[in-house]
Amino acid sequence: MNTPTKNDIKQAFGTVSKYAHKTPVLTSKSINSILGCTVFFKCENFQKVGAFKFRGASNAVFSLNSEQATKGVCTHSSGNHAAALALAASIRGIPAYIVMPNNAPLIKRKAVEGYGAKIFTCESTQEAREKELERVRVETGATFIHPYENFEVICGQGTASLELLDEVKDLQALITPVGGGGLFSGTLIYTKETNPNIEVYAGEPQNADDAYRSLRDGILYPSVNPNTIADGLRTSLCPLTLSIIQKYANGILTVSEESIIKAMRLVWERMKIIIEPSSAVPVAAIMQNREVFKDKRVGVIISGGNVDVENLPF
Amino acid sequence: MNTPTKNDIKQAFGTVSKYAHKTPVLTSKSINSILGCTVFFKCENFQKVGAFKFRGASNAVFSLNSEQATKGVCTHSSGNHAAALALAASIRGIPAYIVMPNNAPLIKRKAVEGYGAKIFTCESTQEAREKELERVRVETGATFIHPYENFEVICGQGTASLELLDEVKDLQALITPVGGGGLFSGTLIYTKETNPNIEVYAGEPQNADDAYRSLRDGILYPSVNPNTIADGLRTSLCPLTLSIIQKYANGILTVSEESIIKAMRLVWERMKIIIEPSSAVPVAAIMQNREVFKDKRVGVIISGGNVDVENLPF
Repeated sequence: MNTPTKNDIKQAFGTVSKYAHKTPVLTSKSINSILGCTVFFKCENFQKVGAFKFRGASNAVFSLNSEQATKGVCTHSSGNHAAALALAASIRGIPAYIVMPNNAPLIKRKAVEGYGAKIFTCESTQEAREKELERVRVETGATFIHPYENFEVICGQGTASLELLDEVKDLQALITPVGGGGLFSGTLIYTKETNPNIEVYAGEPQNADDAYRSLRDGILYPSVNPNTIADGLRTSLCPLTLSIIQKYANGILTVSEESIIKAMRLVWERMKIIIEPSSAVPVAAIMQNREVFKDKRVGVIISGGNVDVENLPF
Repeated sequence: MNTPTKNDIKQAFGTVSKYAHKTPVLTSKSINSILGCTVFFKCENFQKVGAFKFRGASNAVFSLNSEQATKGVCTHSSGNHAAALALAASIRGIPAYIVMPNNAPLIKRKAVEGYGAKIFTCESTQEAREKELERVRVETGATFIHPYENFEVICGQGTASLELLDEVKDLQALITPVGGGGLFSGTLIYTKETNPNIEVYAGEPQNADDAYRSLRDGILYPSVNPNTIADGLRTSLCPLTLSIIQKYANGILTVSEESIIKAMRLVWERMKIIIEPSSAVPVAAIMQNREVFKDKRVGVIISGGNVDVENLPF
């Protein structure tokens, strides 16, 4: 698979900007004073489907040629990518086939169904998911849109940092969460190919630190049933995202579960915005690495806001 | 007490805009589709101290002459007005004396203390609060800033609708919550004296419907220990706010506790912003009075976002 460049992301922006929200950038003096730096929150929790995933999904769906499009798209996911792909497909008026594990929360199934996608249920193992997806793909002829091992998806995710850098001048550092690495990769490419002096980090849960270890050792470690509240970050890198991270990243900062919950609560209480645990991970990374960010102008990509309000960690 | 006019609010804006945030106006297609009208949320939950109250408090504090200012300000409140007054006083560098009932939540005491105010604790009855406040006022010579029976406070609260009408053209209706009536009065004056065709309503909890009954009967009913989750709306009108409401209001719409919780959850889940129960009241009023707002462009003033995240109603 080709590695995207800044120009590919700019081109993706031409597509994504037609369908996605230009999300606001929020700041808070009290947060700045607590974190010891000036933070610019790029609020993808306000994005369609409540997560940055709609950027990549819409770019992938609208990059299909008409013959591919007719047959639709498919993926396996129980999270934000499923909803994003379902919505993007419904906007283009093409079918979406989503394989979901039988233990996926009902609320997520309903969201995907609400966008008109067809759901296939399977056992919750990785093997069962891949097998069922392959069966669906062959039967329907739909194009598989992987949540991050996909050129157009990475380009789409990169458009969040394009908007952020366009709006906030003189950023000195930027941090995102890392799970499969789609958002982190797109952010790295756009940012480093615009200004290599901007430090770009990812935050990752200590309990799911496969990306940290993969970067350290140059080996693609799988993520094996990690026990973290940051449910969006339980996946592992793929060869493409690892290679981009190796090329450009200033580092991956791991954080404790306790600090994730503390950071999530800080943002809820001080900024009055709802962010999901995965989005609190970069904030926790700033809290735990004050010397890295001290007095800098720091961009934080708030990845999403999909939380079960009946089941909060505080 | 004189009744403020639109020009007084414009003048207040000259002061308030120096200290308060110009809060964003947010929209959501899914909320519009659920409510059957186009809603513009003026997000005072993002205001300093997390509530519109900072507008009125800062206008009152910066309207004092220097002799008054030296002696400081005082009030009794366990809610957002106390924090707002404390912050405004700290910005001007003058003392603030806040009388709080001994059952006020610790988190609120800490917020007020954090702004450098001096707290006096008393029994939680209205009588004890007023008596203690009078003692403090006489002892310190501080100026009493009532949370809504105050010319400058009402003018300050009116600046939220000034910003909203300036940003969103062709509004056809506007709705706020009503407790003591400071926000509702300021909104009515600015809006009706700008364009009398804009319908202006307030939402009020059925369980604390003293404003509704006062408007209906032309009598100032006290609010007696109302049992509502909307803790900001438990106060009753004063002669000034009642007279303004009688002159200009299109109506007060009362809502059930159940619908307040439902509306609060709707905004949290769909807009990913944290609003307090009082702010959900106008949204509930739209839900329960669809024919009033159908297909209109409706402004909603989201009054605040101060919620104990450890004690949510869902």
